[in-house]
Formats: sequence, structure tokens, C-alpha cells
Amino acid sequence: MSYLIGMDIGGTNIVCGLTDENGKLLDKIKEPTETAKGSGYVFDKIERMVGELLLKSGIDKFHVRAIGVGTPGFIDPVKGVTVFAGNLQWRQVHTADEISRRTGLPVFIDNDVRMYVYGEAICGAAQGFSHVLGITIGTGLAAAMINDGKLYYGGGYMAGELGHILLPDIPYPCGCGMTGCLETAVSGTGIARQARDRIAAGQPSVLQQWLEGRPLETITAADVSKAYDAGDAMAIEVLNHTGMLLGKGLATAVTLYSPDIIIIGGGGALAGERLFAPMRHYLQQSVYSGYWERLTIRTAQWIDDAGIVGSAMAAKQRLGA
Amino acid sequence: MSYLIGMDIGGTNIVCGLTDENGKLLDKIKEPTETAKGSGYVFDKIERMVGELLLKSGIDKFHVRAIGVGTPGFIDPVKGVTVFAGNLQWRQVHTADEISRRTGLPVFIDNDVRMYVYGEAICGAAQGFSHVLGITIGTGLAAAMINDGKLYYGGGYMAGELGHILLPDIPYPCGCGMTGCLETAVSGTGIARQARDRIAAGQPSVLQQWLEGRPLETITAADVSKAYDAGDAMAIEVLNHTGMLLGKGLATAVTLYSPDIIIIGGGGALAGERLFAPMRHYLQQSVYSGYWERLTIRTAQWIDDAGIVGSAMAAKQRLGA
Repeated sequence: MSYLIGMDIGGTNIVCGLTDENGKLLDKIKEPTETAKGSGYVFDKIERMVGELLLKSGIDKFHVRAIGVGTPGFIDPVKGVTVFAGNLQWRQVHTADEISRRTGLPVFIDNDVRMYVYGEAICGAAQGFSHVLGITIGTGLAAAMINDGKLYYGGGYMAGELGHILLPDIPYPCGCGMTGCLETAVSGTGIARQARDRIAAGQPSVLQQWLEGRPLETITAADVSKAYDAGDAMAIEVLNHTGMLLGKGLATAVTLYSPDIIIIGGGGALAGERLFAPMRHYLQQSVYSGYWERLTIRTAQWIDDAGIVGSAMAAKQRLGA
Repeated sequence: MSYLIGMDIGGTNIVCGLTDENGKLLDKIKEPTETAKGSGYVFDKIERMVGELLLKSGIDKFHVRAIGVGTPGFIDPVKGVTVFAGNLQWRQVHTADEISRRTGLPVFIDNDVRMYVYGEAICGAAQGFSHVLGITIGTGLAAAMINDGKLYYGGGYMAGELGHILLPDIPYPCGCGMTGCLETAVSGTGIARQARDRIAAGQPSVLQQWLEGRPLETITAADVSKAYDAGDAMAIEVLNHTGMLLGKGLATAVTLYSPDIIIIGGGGALAGERLFAPMRHYLQQSVYSGYWERLTIRTAQWIDDAGIVGSAMAAKQRLGA
């Protein structure tokens, strides 16, 4: 029997999991990233975590074929370099080499959202579909496209930045330097921001009472969902508007990529039908009927583990297995 | 020495060309399609044209490896079926089998715009680039994406319908059933339509005098370019607006596909800088700077022959050469 390790290095936590050859997750451990202590510290911690995971599982390292790693930001998967990851404050970090040197194992890295969608495509909610568009609604809005088991990268490995297409009527400046990027409204951050702005502009909402004097900045996307369920008109407007924007953004992606299935993951997916009902409505209105008729839409199977399973399975594929 | 035949079956003409193994066009012949006489008539004509082309070139049929065919509309390249081609009035036509039966040669078909872009990528203006987005501005607006020499198809071979993404402020109904599709404004037809609408709404233009009593419907995109060159304010507004819409539409495609190069072909490309200057301006404004910095934009090398060369080279690739 041989095994793979999948790893997700996020701005907050590192999750490290052991899978079998088929992507079955056997065990996992989690530690805070502590990115402020620098990449060397993080890599030393990863070395320790790999040892600990193997010890805990009773697996000899020689039975592990490779480590797959997902990190946020712009990644060069061929060179194994994290080109830029704002969350980690990493720039031109040789992630694959650093981890390989410490563990003695082959290491393959890629963007964390690509790995998440890869996991869902290979052994999650999109299993059996040939053309998979996966999105994650979290702090931002990210996407990846997989065709016949292969990730779509585009030039500079930069394809799929759905969060940075511009839609009219989005007034927010984006970290990327533009104004009106989809993710400034369609994300956990964006939902909270829309609610705060409406309240600041004087629109009444139950959220104001729930704040009990705390500052507006403490409102989260989860609060907006709660207010929606309480029948709050402001919260209903925000989630309808966000769903509309997501539907229109996805319509463009569907027309250009022609996916068989859209998988929706990330913490923002917890808004569920509050967001998905208006999204479907506007998506159907905004694509040629031939696309809509053959399209399946599903929420992701995993909120947490698709990234580590995807990383492990992508490493297996890149070994040429 | 062995050869390939590339064929472009359009709504107006059939062009049939002979190339060498490297895509060098050696000879070509052209005849009207006469699509009204039915597909059987068209296929018989194609059989005759292939014979005539070989006779004219002095090439024995046994030295021709395959025929590649581009037709408009939705194509199933694996089954060799023209699923639906409005221009030809064909629906579920077994194009590859019909031509193969008549010529005794292997036949591979695909969408004509994919073949055009493939030609430009393999031996035209996009040679040497890994990720090629090609568009043709003609009666409609079509696009194809090629990555490392491979066409991107998506589910149902339906990817790349750039002409059918919706942009705000486009009021025109589209043949696809939606309203506001990019190609209803950004196309030869769309440019002419915008000019007609402005004149009908009372905007003064030199085009009115040029008409000399002919109906507004006779205005073409070429007329609009001519009026632009004469300093006509209406024509300048139409081409600026069209360039802006194209730039914004391309911005979305760049963000999702991340091409290294955009190739622009089709008759509408003859508008040249009148269209491309505003297009570049709005494209640069509407994409993350990281895309813009690595992007090359070129007009197609061929207006006429890329389709037949591309079809011939695609057939060679599909033979497994």
C-alpha cells in the first residue's frame, strides 16, 4: 500500500492530511500558520507536522509517494514557486524545494482553490463530470476550471480570476487596483460590506439592534444570513443583490468555459439558497438556453477537506501515476 | 511528399485548399455554396472541387493524408456532425461521413472560427505563443482559445461564445433568444445597425447624404469606417462605442482564459485602429495590470486563408501525426 500527503497552507491554519492512492482521507492534523514568524519558521513547522502525521497514522515515510501543497495567491506550479501570496506575505518563495528538502519527498504545489476544485472533481461533488467549474466564496471569490481531469491554467498560470471581472453597479475599490471587481461584492467580505454601507446610509435593519453598540465593522456575512432568516428587508436585499451579481458573473464564465457542472464552495456557500436562488434566476436569464439546459449546479461536498484531498491527488497525477 | 486538404464551407462560398505537411498553402479554389440546393448538392460539389483541386495541382489523391473542414455553427468534432449551422440551414448533418464517402479520404470537421484561429496559432500571427485567444468580427462575433496547440472545447464543444456574453447598454435582441449579446453591437452587422439607429433617431451624419435616397438598411460597416475617415461625428461615436464594448468583453475573456496573445480577424477587423484604439483603452482599464503587462494584441495574418490552413493542420493533428 502507498500513500500521499495533501497540505493546505492558509493565512490562518496549515492542514496536513494523509490519503490512500484513491484520495480517501485517512488522517489529518491542523496547526496555526503563524505566518508573521516568516516562511522558514512555517517550513520547519511543516516538517514537524509531516513527521507527526506519519507517526500518528503508523505509516512509514517510505510508503508516501509525494506531498501535494495548496497555497493561496499566484503560484508557478512548474517551478514550485509561490510567486505572490498576500495572505502569507510570501513573494517568490520556493515552497516546493523548501518542503522537499526538509521531508525528503517529492513536493508539488499549486493554488489552493485549484486544489480544492480538483479534489471536488476527482472524488467529490463533481465526480463523473468532464468539464468542472468550481468557485469558492470566502474572503474573496476564486475559481478554477478542470477539463477531463486537467486543470486549466492559461498564460502565467493566471486563468480563472472570476473575482476580478468587472460588473457595473459595483462601487468598491479592489486590492488589485481596479474598482468594481466582482469579489468586492460577491464574497463574505463583500456581503458584510454591503450590509454595513446600507446601514451607514440610513437603511433600517435588525442588525443595528443586534450590534448593541458594537461598531458596524463587526458585522459578518453570517450575521446577514441570520438577519435574512429574521425577515430583515435590508439583509434580503443584500443577498438578492449579491446572488444577482454572482449569477451574472457566472453567466460569462459559463459562456466562455462551457462547464458541465458548477461546484460552489467556501464559507460564503453557507448562505445557501438565500444566495443560490437569485443566482440561478439571473444565471438562467443571462446565458444562451443551450448552456443552461446541460448545466448542473451543486454545492461542494466538503467545506474543509477538498483542498488536502485535491492536493494529494494532484501530486499523484503529477508523479505521472 | 504528402499533402493535406483544408476546406472552409461558408454560407456564401466553399474554399478548398491544398497544403503541404507544414501548412504552406500550395493552391486553392473557390465556388459558391448554393446552400439552398440542399446538403447533398453541396457535398457533390465538394467531391468535384477536391478532384479539380488535385488535377490543377498535379497531385495524386494517394498523397493526400486527410481533409480538414471548417463549418459555421455548433459542431461535434468527435462524431463529425454539424449539429446546427444557421448560415447553411444544416441541422444534424453528418458532414465528415458524407465527404469521406465521396472522396475516400479521412475527414475531420470543426467549427470554422476554431479552424481560423488554429491556422493563425500554428502558422500565422500567433505562432510561438502558448495561449492564444482568437476572435473574428464578421456577421457575428466568435472566439476560440488554444492552449499549447490544443483547442479548448468545453462541455458540448460549446466554449468560447464571446459574442453571447451580455453587456449592459446593448439594447438589441439576439438570434440566440437573449437581449444584449455582445455580437449584436460588436460585429459588422452591429456596427451598421448602430449607425442606422442613430440616423433614424435624428442624429446628423454624412452617411445620410451618401445614401442618396437608398434605404437606411443598405448602410454597411465599411460605410461607417468611410464616414469615420471623413470626420463624421456619428460614425466616430459608433466606432468608439463599439471599441469600448469589445474592450470590456475581451477584459472578461482575458481574466478567465489568461491568453498570451489576442488575434483579431474577420472582415470587421478592417475597421482597424478606428476600433482597436478604444478597444485597447477599455481593455487595459478593465483587467488586472498583471494580465495587461503580459498581453500581446495583433490583427490576424490572413483575412482569407487561415481557415483552410487551420483545417488542414487540425486534420493532420487529429490523424495523430
